[in-house]
Amino acid sequence: MKTDIEIARAATKLPIARIAERLGIGADEILPYGHDKAKISRDFIDGLRHRPEGKLVLVTAINPTPAGEGKTTTTVGLGDALNRIGQRATVCIREASLGPNFGMKGGAAGGGHAQVIPMEDMNLHFTGDFHAITSAHNLLAAMIDNHIHWGNALDIDPRRITWRRVMDMNDRALRDVVLGLGGTANGVPRESGFDITVASEVMAILCLADDLQDLQDRLGRIIVAQTRDGRPVTARDLQADGAMTVLLRDALQPNLVQTLENNPALVHGGPFANIAHGCNSVIATRTALRLSDFVVTEAGFGADLGAEKFLGIKCRKAGLSPAAVVLVATVRALKMNGGVARADLGSENVTAVRTGAANLTRHIRNLRGYGLPVVVAINHFATDTAAEIAAVQDAAEAEGVRAILCRHWSKGGAGAEDLAREVLRLSDHPPGFRPLYPDEMPLWDKIETICTRIYGAARVEAPPAVRARLESWQAEYGHLPVCMAKTPYSFSADPTLHGAPTGFTIPVREVRLAAGAGFVVAICGDIMTMPGLPREPAANRIGLDAHGRIEGLF
Amino acid sequence: MKTDIEIARAATKLPIARIAERLGIGADEILPYGHDKAKISRDFIDGLRHRPEGKLVLVTAINPTPAGEGKTTTTVGLGDALNRIGQRATVCIREASLGPNFGMKGGAAGGGHAQVIPMEDMNLHFTGDFHAITSAHNLLAAMIDNHIHWGNALDIDPRRITWRRVMDMNDRALRDVVLGLGGTANGVPRESGFDITVASEVMAILCLADDLQDLQDRLGRIIVAQTRDGRPVTARDLQADGAMTVLLRDALQPNLVQTLENNPALVHGGPFANIAHGCNSVIATRTALRLSDFVVTEAGFGADLGAEKFLGIKCRKAGLSPAAVVLVATVRALKMNGGVARADLGSENVTAVRTGAANLTRHIRNLRGYGLPVVVAINHFATDTAAEIAAVQDAAEAEGVRAILCRHWSKGGAGAEDLAREVLRLSDHPPGFRPLYPDEMPLWDKIETICTRIYGAARVEAPPAVRARLESWQAEYGHLPVCMAKTPYSFSADPTLHGAPTGFTIPVREVRLAAGAGFVVAICGDIMTMPGLPREPAANRIGLDAHGRIEGLF
Repeated sequence: MKTDIEIARAATKLPIARIAERLGIGADEILPYGHDKAKISRDFIDGLRHRPEGKLVLVTAINPTPAGEGKTTTTVGLGDALNRIGQRATVCIREASLGPNFGMKGGAAGGGHAQVIPMEDMNLHFTGDFHAITSAHNLLAAMIDNHIHWGNALDIDPRRITWRRVMDMNDRALRDVVLGLGGTANGVPRESGFDITVASEVMAILCLADDLQDLQDRLGRIIVAQTRDGRPVTARDLQADGAMTVLLRDALQPNLVQTLENNPALVHGGPFANIAHGCNSVIATRTALRLSDFVVTEAGFGADLGAEKFLGIKCRKAGLSPAAVVLVATVRALKMNGGVARADLGSENVTAVRTGAANLTRHIRNLRGYGLPVVVAINHFATDTAAEIAAVQDAAEAEGVRAILCRHWSKGGAGAEDLAREVLRLSDHPPGFRPLYPDEMPLWDKIETICTRIYGAARVEAPPAVRARLESWQAEYGHLPVCMAKTPYSFSADPTLHGAPTGFTIPVREVRLAAGAGFVVAICGDIMTMPGLPREPAANRIGLDAHGRIEGLF
Repeated sequence: MKTDIEIARAATKLPIARIAERLGIGADEILPYGHDKAKISRDFIDGLRHRPEGKLVLVTAINPTPAGEGKTTTTVGLGDALNRIGQRATVCIREASLGPNFGMKGGAAGGGHAQVIPMEDMNLHFTGDFHAITSAHNLLAAMIDNHIHWGNALDIDPRRITWRRVMDMNDRALRDVVLGLGGTANGVPRESGFDITVASEVMAILCLADDLQDLQDRLGRIIVAQTRDGRPVTARDLQADGAMTVLLRDALQPNLVQTLENNPALVHGGPFANIAHGCNSVIATRTALRLSDFVVTEAGFGADLGAEKFLGIKCRKAGLSPAAVVLVATVRALKMNGGVARADLGSENVTAVRTGAANLTRHIRNLRGYGLPVVVAINHFATDTAAEIAAVQDAAEAEGVRAILCRHWSKGGAGAEDLAREVLRLSDHPPGFRPLYPDEMPLWDKIETICTRIYGAARVEAPPAVRARLESWQAEYGHLPVCMAKTPYSFSADPTLHGAPTGFTIPVREVRLAAGAGFVVAICGDIMTMPGLPREPAANRIGLDAHGRIEGLF
């Protein structure tokens, strides 16, 4: 059996200008990066403003397990399948973070015969967007310390600077640092630290901005610190927003690549799915909608986190309305949700599938609660038995939803044509998207609504200080949506509770205001914003072979 | 009078594929970055190995003053002029560092009518080379701390780690930090810090590497720390060299852009001229030589530092031999060397020019000592008087060298045709390059040779510990050249001593081994490896105008 990278290398790539041409984008309207990647020019995008938009399809999943679900693979396979049945479909996914590839085996863009290429570039520097975000973020950080160094006219309290630095690297030694040491020439000593670049609020902002002006406005609103008397200090107060926008000017333009079947894919942005909203950029999604009949996109983690944030943050703020939702499940993952250990996944266990399907059922009900038509995609594995597959289909049909077996991993778009036809059928109805909560609902009530109605929690707890902070933001920021930071492995805050747990409490430990991105983060557990490398990092084995090709990255 | 950026924006750029075509590079042999930048593909470069090489012209200068000399401007103007008189000439210069542009007014690529474009991109992310270097450098740093975290099998002494982290940003607060704080999950607390990316040994290595294999070999030789019993620990010991090479694979390919007159320019690499060798990459220079009749390149600072390192490190290690040297001077700068204050530069002062010309004379003698033909380029300013210009010419002619008035800043290549003809004449002789010292000379003697013969020092001093370190390296590394780190503003180590001082002592305070780059750094004074931002950073004024064009960067 061929590996993902072998399949990717055997693919016949079309010149990226040909892919652009299929979307109606001229050769002068793209900015090529090599022959297989390009950015779509700002001017071209500006010219699309009044075009009608195609239909948006969200691919989400049951809660992730170590068995693997295949959300990106299904997104790519469905995109290819829609093209095969005569629709002009574009795939929109996130960019990969560089750092983690040197820790564990790299996160490719899809897998098997449903991939986006060139995968080597996409797992390394790609078109430099994340480097630009790193630079913009760290320029703001340097300007904060520089401001204090030169007299601190804004009266920033060095103990209350919340803006850390970022690096696109797994580097645990940078989590907590003391900087500004070495004497008066080096600024003011203080505690701080580094996050990984994808956790930067600048990343979330880039992914939610409508255009350059909106980008600059949002960057200016970033709150970096408080003064000694508790007033917020923004990036605009430091006059950093213009220079940050300059650093991000090119990065704001979405990246065009292709699937293995030479269909267009926009790969743009990658906010951390745990402390941010976890979906690709609004600009990419909107551009694709104006150039296609269908746009297939995905959101991070399972539907409790990914779809909820996609709908509650991205769709709400950008005015997007999905035409259909694909909920990805695998027999293996449902078995794990049903209590089977990873080592026993190879044996048939219909009972476990039925038990685990409670997870699927709750996600279906949640999604239908948004007024959205749903189809379940069963991402096929060779070990799945007919009885197990039937058990999944029974569970879905009990909710009035079809569950369709998909073989895009082994067969490419041809393996997902049935899914594509069901998506076509579902999206033929007028959109009925209803947000979970209105903008004017108080912040705490928004958190409770998500926890009880989506997660199925019995109650939500928070220390008085957390409630007080939410209260203090209510007047100025109460209209913002909430971005939940919770374990993706369970509906609850306990990663070991699989299936569809009930009666649990969600503890909100901390809240953070992302005034630039435009959401309030509610942290329910330990959230890691700077990963570390494992004992044997993948970097030890990564290198070039005799032909200059990359080994060990995949 | 038009500003540099106005002139640059008014230029008619040719598509980069057309520029490549003029060098005999096909459209498939470049990797475009937008329509005005491209990398030359590794495969194409590999295919040039047996091509004959054109002639190499070094542009260097008198010691820099605040009056400005115009080395890059002269490099570009001479390249354009050589093309005008029928030679196929390519300009090879360094890439700009991003960070400093947000501190002071940005360093454009040349000026007036002698510029390389697109200058906005060149002063920002360009093709991402410096970001790749930052990533490779910091991956190695993360792997050091990770190795210690997981048990420290190599017995690295955390107090003797010399490998710091880097960022392409002016950020004084990062000069000295304590990292690894926050408990056992975050590694081992220790002192460290950040340098600016151009100061990274990875940068010097990229600029000296012959090809990918040589790059990886050099990266593997980097010494990052010592064990508790004093043995060196290398990047190869940490198995980091392969992954670092992967991160640098694309960055090793030189970048092709164009001058205002649509002539080819390779802009590649940018090692700090103070603690590294300060010239563009060997790969770019060699590629250009194989595609052109003439290659015009420059080296950092004045000829005492820049030309000495260009000849003693780059030419020595790469086997390059310049056909001629252009020594840039201005009447204004010579007046400052002759003791005139900056405010008085507008008034004629022939006596001061004559006094200051001692600086010019010593540089001429030094360069001729290498067996190289020299021409002085007087970079014309509107305030220069005929008598002042004649004084410069007299000083040059007293050394048997012509001094040619150049007006490329105001007239482009047409203003430097006389200079081009003189270069053509000088380079018609067989090359006579003689290195200053042989490889086998002991390290200390190399330092003494540079200080006495090039700087004109009376003596060289060093603490016993410095002499002992050099002794300890002699057996294994004694064949390496020396890379001097000294103030550029004087032949001496005292930046206030202008002209051609004598009788001074050069104090060598510290020596460092750059085993990967392949040189020993001798530090003679305070060397800043992480700049800070000024009180009013340029970033405060940088932004986009209503047309999305960058303001305040230039």
